[in-house]
Amino acid sequence: MLNVTVWGENVHEQDDAAVQKIYPDTMHETIAAGLRAKLGDEVKVRTAWLQQPEHGLTEEVLAETDVLTWWGHRAHGDVDDAVVERVQEAVLSGMGLIALHSAHFSKIFKKLMGTTCSLDWRSEDDRELLWTVAAGHPIAAGVPHPLVIPQEEMYGELFDVPQPDELVFVSSFSGGEVFRSGCCYRRGQGRVFYFRPGDQEYPTYHQPEVQQILANAVQWAAPVVPRQLPDVHHRKTPGWFDQA
Amino acid sequence: MLNVTVWGENVHEQDDAAVQKIYPDTMHETIAAGLRAKLGDEVKVRTAWLQQPEHGLTEEVLAETDVLTWWGHRAHGDVDDAVVERVQEAVLSGMGLIALHSAHFSKIFKKLMGTTCSLDWRSEDDRELLWTVAAGHPIAAGVPHPLVIPQEEMYGELFDVPQPDELVFVSSFSGGEVFRSGCCYRRGQGRVFYFRPGDQEYPTYHQPEVQQILANAVQWAAPVVPRQLPDVHHRKTPGWFDQA
Amino acid sequence: MLNVTVWGENVHEQDDAAVQKIYPDTMHETIAAGLRAKLGDEVKVRTAWLQQPEHGLTEEVLAETDVLTWWGHRAHGDVDDAVVERVQEAVLSGMGLIALHSAHFSKIFKKLMGTTCSLDWRSEDDRELLWTVAAGHPIAAGVPHPLVIPQEEMYGELFDVPQPDELVFVSSFSGGEVFRSGCCYRRGQGRVFYFRPGDQEYPTYHQPEVQQILANAVQWAAPVVPRQLPDVHHRKTPGWFDQA
Amino acid sequence: MLNVTVWGENVHEQDDAAVQKIYPDTMHETIAAGLRAKLGDEVKVRTAWLQQPEHGLTEEVLAETDVLTWWGHRAHGDVDDAVVERVQEAVLSGMGLIALHSAHFSKIFKKLMGTTCSLDWRSEDDRELLWTVAAGHPIAAGVPHPLVIPQEEMYGELFDVPQPDELVFVSSFSGGEVFRSGCCYRRGQGRVFYFRPGDQEYPTYHQPEVQQILANAVQWAAPVVPRQLPDVHHRKTPGWFDQA
Repeated sequence: MLNVTVWGENVHEQDDAAVQKIYPDTMHETIAAGLRAKLGDEVKVRTAWLQQPEHGLTEEVLAETDVLTWWGHRAHGDVDDAVVERVQEAVLSGMGLIALHSAHFSKIFKKLMGTTCSLDWRSEDDRELLWTVAAGHPIAAGVPHPLVIPQEEMYGELFDVPQPDELVFVSSFSGGEVFRSGCCYRRGQGRVFYFRPGDQEYPTYHQPEVQQILANAVQWAAPVVPRQLPDVHHRKTPGWFDQA
Repeated sequence: MLNVTVWGENVHEQDDAAVQKIYPDTMHETIAAGLRAKLGDEVKVRTAWLQQPEHGLTEEVLAETDVLTWWGHRAHGDVDDAVVERVQEAVLSGMGLIALHSAHFSKIFKKLMGTTCSLDWRSEDDRELLWTVAAGHPIAAGVPHPLVIPQEEMYGELFDVPQPDELVFVSSFSGGEVFRSGCCYRRGQGRVFYFRPGDQEYPTYHQPEVQQILANAVQWAAPVVPRQLPDVHHRKTPGWFDQA
Repeated sequence: MLNVTVWGENVHEQDDAAVQKIYPDTMHETIAAGLRAKLGDEVKVRTAWLQQPEHGLTEEVLAETDVLTWWGHRAHGDVDDAVVERVQEAVLSGMGLIALHSAHFSKIFKKLMGTTCSLDWRSEDDRELLWTVAAGHPIAAGVPHPLVIPQEEMYGELFDVPQPDELVFVSSFSGGEVFRSGCCYRRGQGRVFYFRPGDQEYPTYHQPEVQQILANAVQWAAPVVPRQLPDVHHRKTPGWFDQA
Repeated sequence: MLNVTVWGENVHEQDDAAVQKIYPDTMHETIAAGLRAKLGDEVKVRTAWLQQPEHGLTEEVLAETDVLTWWGHRAHGDVDDAVVERVQEAVLSGMGLIALHSAHFSKIFKKLMGTTCSLDWRSEDDRELLWTVAAGHPIAAGVPHPLVIPQEEMYGELFDVPQPDELVFVSSFSGGEVFRSGCCYRRGQGRVFYFRPGDQEYPTYHQPEVQQILANAVQWAAPVVPRQLPDVHHRKTPGWFDQA
């Protein structure tokens, strides 16, 4: 069974009536509910958020988390650097990370990518079509081709990230822009998936196909070997000749 | 100075009045002229076509060719298998190959990819927007973001090719589809670039920005080491300890 | 449960006393037994070989096979081209393929790679060390770092294959050579893993750590979506605007 | 003409007699001399070092630098964070970066990679063999296969870096270890090359073949488009339909 922690910034939900109307239970609880609905007994989902002590991401929580999902937008700067380093260490040790939408600018995602992670944007109710470009990829299993998201914020290229190890989805928007919307990375022992859709002003996380993608991604990102941070080792000479 | 051979199927140009009107000098001569216009003294461009003996691609021609561009569509099946193997050997030895538009289904491209190279399509005057997704890539140098092609055939994902070593361009179409339109591959000592636009029914190869991309691609694909087909070697023991 | 077909050339086993001594049950039966030992009820393993009608790889067998392992060496040329195309189609439709050792020169592997697949070699009892270079990769789960194979044939770079989508293992040999020994590829809907060790003159497939790698690879290569050959589709206009 | 800045930590050279004997002109001046010897008029090389104001890497210097080479070891922690961010910004804007040997643990390399960059090591006069694994790659042009470095520090896998966009060299050591010794990355508009050999206790940078690799790498890493940091842009609606 997978242990998933769904992290939410939980800021829009406190002061933005429009967001509250779409996500009365908060975005993170909605995302968590979607995972439970799709994965049932295969998964144990908890939530954590910015305003908790240590943002709810203590050493203990991270140690028990197989996959962490991260949604943030307005308060990236309020995330404590020590927590960010702790999450980075967990990822490099093998914890999966799903970075959602505006988390492209989160401290943790930028730290793992090493680039600006900048992009173009427009928030004017574009229709988004999400196309699968990796045949047979587990994250695309059961996902329509294309997946139609009726209204969303637009993110456009150039998305300044390292070329993904595997590119799974590419979006088009009604304005004509395109975006690499599903990007897989291996970092240390961990796996990172960036997924574009999910602006706070749209009911995207209520959409069953999006929930399916997140469920697929959680399973894809789960560690398969014991957690361990890659580290320096001094190898003694003469080494392997002794064994030969 | 680079030696470029522009290969054309030269079939539509013989029997299709609409194509003749757009490309009165044939498609391959138009592509060749564009390269000469953009690269001037840096390049020596010749053309070759299907109806010539050995399709104009003798051992001698290939030996003198640094980069070969390939456009074909209706007559893929008429290309002699022996010539295809000769071209494959040249590519693996270091000759660059630029596969253009419907050349996705050419024998040589399929042979180098190992996949079906299938895709979705529609020929109904879609507008194409070509977006750069590889910051600072030489093939995108001087190319507008996006490059607007007013009317083109649509090619849509899923494009069944190996994940490119570098993905340079992604297109959107007015119908909402997307396509990986600029794909870089290394195969053997050679470099292969697939470029999507260029249907025979549209004046795409007259467009200066498209000519710029082809000129960039030719320079990118040119060999930098002496031509040599990778081959099997028997290494004697005890090997490198003797030299240490 | 996974259905695995272990294919063997079964030629050395018929006429080479040294090989018969190491593999009295044939190489393919030994590989199959190793998979059964490691995967138990998770897998149903059958074998097939060159001398059977259609090499034992009928449409029916391939349709029921989730993952095919392939060992061949002396008789690559005797494999029927029609069967090779059938296997390629199965792979592109989603069947996993594990190419073993000298299968680098099999028709099916070369067809899927598009390159010469040539390499350097020496068969003089080199010690091989297999190092994991992809942290946390499922194919390396539970594998020692390095895995020591006391004696093996040497394969050295340059291995003329497309750059792997994921490189999992790199070998060194007592002669000082190196080799990319564990290479992952996605082709069509299928996954391909090339694994270097396994010359007929050494008892490599009896080694439990090698059996573990093959078991891991079989699980990694198994399809996760329904089998389907990527194909051409004509998309009607006006497309997705109607749905928006 | 390329402007290259060779940066050196310049610490061992101040207090370590063994290093002073091998590199009486300092390591950075030796590296710079090698580039001048190999590239002549194609390049203008300057040096900079830790002890200078702003480590010699002012905004002006970086703005004029096409490619920066970086060697550091004992004093990574003394490099000012503000300078590191400045260098990162320059790289993402298009400046090439060549990270040398123990620069795997430099602040700038770790920041660009996002991983621990840890590895195994032993400093006991191993012989290193450097094998080319990317056929026809410009950084390997003119380099022997293998390149023999008679004595060097050993670096062994697992090297905890993102999978390189292109892997050019793999080393073996007399102890049997292997290492991905030549790794290409694109980050933002910039190109990054990591090159393993070059411990301060060995005369590696005096070796002509190593100088050739560094010369090749400098040419490979040079920017081909105007410098610009990828940035966020707000795209107005209705976007590209107006232009169609």
